[in-house]
Amino acid sequence: MKNTFGTSVLVTIYGESHGNSVGVVMDGLAPGIPVDGEYVKKMLLRRRGAADISTPRRETDSVIFESGVYSGRTSGTPICIRIENTDTKSSDYEATRWLARPSHADYSAYCKYHGYEDFRGGGHFSGRITAGLVAAGAVVIPALERKGIRIATHILRCGGVSDRDFEDVDADIRALNERDFGVLDESAGKEMVAKIKSARAEGNSLGGTLETAIAGLPAGLGEPWFDTVESMIAHMMFSVPAVKGVEFGAGFGFADMTGKNANDPFRISGGRVVTSTNNSGGINGGITNGMPVIFRCAVRPTPTVLFSQDTVDFRLNREAEIKAAGRHDPCIVHRARTVVDCAAALTVCDIIASHYGTDWLGE
Amino acid sequence: MKNTFGTSVLVTIYGESHGNSVGVVMDGLAPGIPVDGEYVKKMLLRRRGAADISTPRRETDSVIFESGVYSGRTSGTPICIRIENTDTKSSDYEATRWLARPSHADYSAYCKYHGYEDFRGGGHFSGRITAGLVAAGAVVIPALERKGIRIATHILRCGGVSDRDFEDVDADIRALNERDFGVLDESAGKEMVAKIKSARAEGNSLGGTLETAIAGLPAGLGEPWFDTVESMIAHMMFSVPAVKGVEFGAGFGFADMTGKNANDPFRISGGRVVTSTNNSGGINGGITNGMPVIFRCAVRPTPTVLFSQDTVDFRLNREAEIKAAGRHDPCIVHRARTVVDCAAALTVCDIIASHYGTDWLGE
Amino acid sequence: MKNTFGTSVLVTIYGESHGNSVGVVMDGLAPGIPVDGEYVKKMLLRRRGAADISTPRRETDSVIFESGVYSGRTSGTPICIRIENTDTKSSDYEATRWLARPSHADYSAYCKYHGYEDFRGGGHFSGRITAGLVAAGAVVIPALERKGIRIATHILRCGGVSDRDFEDVDADIRALNERDFGVLDESAGKEMVAKIKSARAEGNSLGGTLETAIAGLPAGLGEPWFDTVESMIAHMMFSVPAVKGVEFGAGFGFADMTGKNANDPFRISGGRVVTSTNNSGGINGGITNGMPVIFRCAVRPTPTVLFSQDTVDFRLNREAEIKAAGRHDPCIVHRARTVVDCAAALTVCDIIASHYGTDWLGE
Amino acid sequence: MKNTFGTSVLVTIYGESHGNSVGVVMDGLAPGIPVDGEYVKKMLLRRRGAADISTPRRETDSVIFESGVYSGRTSGTPICIRIENTDTKSSDYEATRWLARPSHADYSAYCKYHGYEDFRGGGHFSGRITAGLVAAGAVVIPALERKGIRIATHILRCGGVSDRDFEDVDADIRALNERDFGVLDESAGKEMVAKIKSARAEGNSLGGTLETAIAGLPAGLGEPWFDTVESMIAHMMFSVPAVKGVEFGAGFGFADMTGKNANDPFRISGGRVVTSTNNSGGINGGITNGMPVIFRCAVRPTPTVLFSQDTVDFRLNREAEIKAAGRHDPCIVHRARTVVDCAAALTVCDIIASHYGTDWLGE
Repeated sequence: MKNTFGTSVLVTIYGESHGNSVGVVMDGLAPGIPVDGEYVKKMLLRRRGAADISTPRRETDSVIFESGVYSGRTSGTPICIRIENTDTKSSDYEATRWLARPSHADYSAYCKYHGYEDFRGGGHFSGRITAGLVAAGAVVIPALERKGIRIATHILRCGGVSDRDFEDVDADIRALNERDFGVLDESAGKEMVAKIKSARAEGNSLGGTLETAIAGLPAGLGEPWFDTVESMIAHMMFSVPAVKGVEFGAGFGFADMTGKNANDPFRISGGRVVTSTNNSGGINGGITNGMPVIFRCAVRPTPTVLFSQDTVDFRLNREAEIKAAGRHDPCIVHRARTVVDCAAALTVCDIIASHYGTDWLGE
Repeated sequence: MKNTFGTSVLVTIYGESHGNSVGVVMDGLAPGIPVDGEYVKKMLLRRRGAADISTPRRETDSVIFESGVYSGRTSGTPICIRIENTDTKSSDYEATRWLARPSHADYSAYCKYHGYEDFRGGGHFSGRITAGLVAAGAVVIPALERKGIRIATHILRCGGVSDRDFEDVDADIRALNERDFGVLDESAGKEMVAKIKSARAEGNSLGGTLETAIAGLPAGLGEPWFDTVESMIAHMMFSVPAVKGVEFGAGFGFADMTGKNANDPFRISGGRVVTSTNNSGGINGGITNGMPVIFRCAVRPTPTVLFSQDTVDFRLNREAEIKAAGRHDPCIVHRARTVVDCAAALTVCDIIASHYGTDWLGE
Repeated sequence: MKNTFGTSVLVTIYGESHGNSVGVVMDGLAPGIPVDGEYVKKMLLRRRGAADISTPRRETDSVIFESGVYSGRTSGTPICIRIENTDTKSSDYEATRWLARPSHADYSAYCKYHGYEDFRGGGHFSGRITAGLVAAGAVVIPALERKGIRIATHILRCGGVSDRDFEDVDADIRALNERDFGVLDESAGKEMVAKIKSARAEGNSLGGTLETAIAGLPAGLGEPWFDTVESMIAHMMFSVPAVKGVEFGAGFGFADMTGKNANDPFRISGGRVVTSTNNSGGINGGITNGMPVIFRCAVRPTPTVLFSQDTVDFRLNREAEIKAAGRHDPCIVHRARTVVDCAAALTVCDIIASHYGTDWLGE
Repeated sequence: MKNTFGTSVLVTIYGESHGNSVGVVMDGLAPGIPVDGEYVKKMLLRRRGAADISTPRRETDSVIFESGVYSGRTSGTPICIRIENTDTKSSDYEATRWLARPSHADYSAYCKYHGYEDFRGGGHFSGRITAGLVAAGAVVIPALERKGIRIATHILRCGGVSDRDFEDVDADIRALNERDFGVLDESAGKEMVAKIKSARAEGNSLGGTLETAIAGLPAGLGEPWFDTVESMIAHMMFSVPAVKGVEFGAGFGFADMTGKNANDPFRISGGRVVTSTNNSGGINGGITNGMPVIFRCAVRPTPTVLFSQDTVDFRLNREAEIKAAGRHDPCIVHRARTVVDCAAALTVCDIIASHYGTDWLGE
């Protein structure tokens, strides 16, 4: 449903890269949840990424709660979060108004909005819009943690470098949430950073894979049709700009497995049902089974590269060349990690509230 | 939203493996669409799969239109399609009532439904439920084709054997839709069938990858947030039992690409805007760009295998062993192909009606 | 949203007057609710109305649970209820295919469905479709009663005759649910029946007002925007054919009141907060306040009357005359009472599940 | 669905009486619609009401378009409208924090939000929130007018005084939209104003009835189940604070009519199908028939009156007395008229876009 996600906990998003502000309205959150402004700020900072491997656009990202928070807690009514745009340089984009930047949304947006779209800096298609989503997610993550639900995302692969897999999921989540650059193996992280710097120097960009763990989800959440946990998470993740693949557990690896080695045997551990392996990624039949939900997102390389590229002028319907203007993110994988954490948290809130009702998260 | 999918064209699903019937209710379809009962029958037959590589359960799959079709055409009001279950052997399952079949939904369903679920043959989690979805999709596929929108899915990989990639998408779609076993390279298909037969002989099962092309979609469809075309398709596909990954265009392959080689340059061909490559899978910024939409689904091996497996009795909360009873599909990849075609068609109808309104498909 | 109502407990409706069957699919109901087939039968019989004041169409109304009920209880997965149409006389309608029966939906349906609609007996616009809704409501009413939530509707006014107002709401609800003809004052009821019989004799029809009480709802249900309890109930009621007005508490009577006499003072009774009067109809700011929810529905006279009426042939776009053919309900107010009970029950289930979660009703 | 209304054109609302701002996010609007800031301002001013018969709270109501408007037109992406709160006096309310103001939402909100709600000035339940809705409606009303769809609301009854009924609907709509106080008969209007002033002098308040006409709607809009035009409009109207009844056409008057005099005969006028009377209020079977849609809203007297009233302290669960503090609206009927116009316009946009698609309104 257009710019609103969720049925029980709803997130509505708005904003353009060079408009007044970006933001969200959230509804359905339990009343009484403490809102930790410092944590929100921290997550927005983490989303921004280190200066040497991210866009030079430097937004202050100060968060204004327009509604829904009273005396430091959620009031239960809609929370509007607004983040002003301050560091915008719209003139950068005017010259190439009708040239489709390859693999950006310029042309497809034009087909949809007939030229009325705010094209400056990608408008509503810009990664800038994710700031609102991160702020919203940062409101609920501490509440989920109080309920024993913990989320973290690491960069599984970037620039040809692989991080190690999740091992002790709880410990790994804790470690990741202390790190500015989201890797489990910090030496792999250093290599990735070096690759990103090289890409920046060349005017090129890198893609990657993110892997997320959600631990502590109760078993029995989700729907068989059509709101499987996979469907809900994937729906959200495929809204995050640049995500082009989502897989759960063994995911595409299942193609070369057999039932015999793919199945996750059940056993009892510490008095509760667990599985020995987790190829299912914590989900059977669309429903959580109590094991950590594990999923991966493929992140395409940012389409802005500083090379001359073949394209078209879509107003004149003729071929042209374009050389990127505007600011340049050599990689967004490390930044998208925070967006994925927050997007996952919001999805989980919706799934939980659908099952346990509105108040559960605040209790 | 629970058992209903869509906002403009809605599909509501019901049924259990061993209940009276399975079926769907569709609403929002344009009035006046001719309903081709023979085509529906053909697709249900194709979904069933050849006897030697599929479950021995043999349903007649006769389709009853309870409502919404008048004088051979859609009336515009809800279409209820019902398919009776006839070949059910429920006693097969009684003995193992409280044993969780590994990687099946028995345990997660128990956590959700507290033991009230109809567990026979997987109940509402059974692949049997997809029969209704296939019938619904088979109602709309011919209407989409009249509008120049053509869909086909092939088995990209199964049992360690790969089919060739899409080349001439239009020709490939036509060819696939004539074939019972969905491959582009028929010699690869023969190898796959051999692998499936071996798996059956061993009591084992195989996973695979399906690749789907949707050609002829107008540019400009979909939403930036949250109903991107990727989100909508993925939401639907992750409802299809056994699908554990969905990727678009280069998908997870983007992880090792750079912006320079990942971007799809635009050019003019035959007077219209196209891209030279299609790594984006026909979608930029969540919106169709007029190129074929290409996506792949990872299909896990069917969890029913004829080996003894470790598990738990979840009522007694203790460990146990289970050896499969019931009928056995050594592979469902070749069957899921038809489900994916139909599920994609329904999703496309919803996306189109949201943009162009209710009547477009019937005009 | 088209043919589905609800966000947490969903009801999807299908069927035409002269099609195969009418029915519903319900989802989101708690697992484990006992399904009382006798009660469902009783409510369908009550909906049919006594033979001498209702349509001569006599359906057996046997209910088939296609799915979602296992071992006599809700399984938690979608419940499909199907009721076959048997006593259909379609030839009655052929001659007047393109004549708009005044105040029926023939012409507006033609404008929407362009002539593809199933017009026989009103098709999908027929009151026949409410049979499915009644069956669905009859599944949940006993579950609500176990939770202390009781619903009843009486005919407040019909044929110029008024029933008395609710006095002791709990006792009145109990009394009403034992009566075939829904009045509190049985002598008023006799007068109404006499008026309906006169109308039948004249070939005329009568309208009326229904008043419903929902007792035992917890305080704190509903949303301030946009899903107020009034919005939810009204949305549902205005789907019931012939309902043209809905008001809560003092309703339109507020127009001539002042704040001083309209306000409901709070007081403590039996240790809990109550109001001395209930002009608000149990709802303040869209949220239940713990008092009985009281609402009234205006029911228009059935448009089928046995007089010659001016109309148009909408295919030929020219004026014409029509004299009713087909069977004739001289009044549906007494029948609509059961539909309103059931529709209210389904709405209440949705509102409750949105707040307390899926399982509450089954606990 | 909580704080979002609509399926094709969506309005999401947020804000509290004494928070930072109130506002809305709209999505699904056609791109290219000119946004007339002066008209928005005018409607907000009209909503405020004349100073001598309305609350002394004087907000500047300056509207900030945070997103979705580019070069003076809708861009097609979400429009966030924000209106700052400036004239707030929160200390007025502190002393009576736990006293339930009779017929206000204080107690029901407490039951829902457990004491975390922002209670100041009614918080999210305040009529103040309608400012955002009015701004949103004022964006679309001119676009509807360009399509020949015109809306106006008059005060049918207030303080025991009746306005005349609609006669020439088109002319009446034009006249009303030029008037600050919404009556057709201006002498009746003067009487009403006198009654409101008396009520203010007494510290009392008045209710009333609003009647709305929507002319120029195409025939064939709406759904039979569940999104009838009546359902959609009523759903929206019952979200507007103080609305306690909604009726269409003859509405509750149908109770005393017979089919013979209630039916609207069809005839041809100027080459098109019309009805001689409009008891159906332009809607048959939930679908527009091309005649003006006519509906009435019952508006309760504002609950704030300057008398001592019996109530309870709901934290202490004991009886108490309350005498109103805070600012006082002796009547909101004349102000609600503008809210109803705007709310109706938004509902109509949603209904139209669901049928004709996203672009129709902007073409």
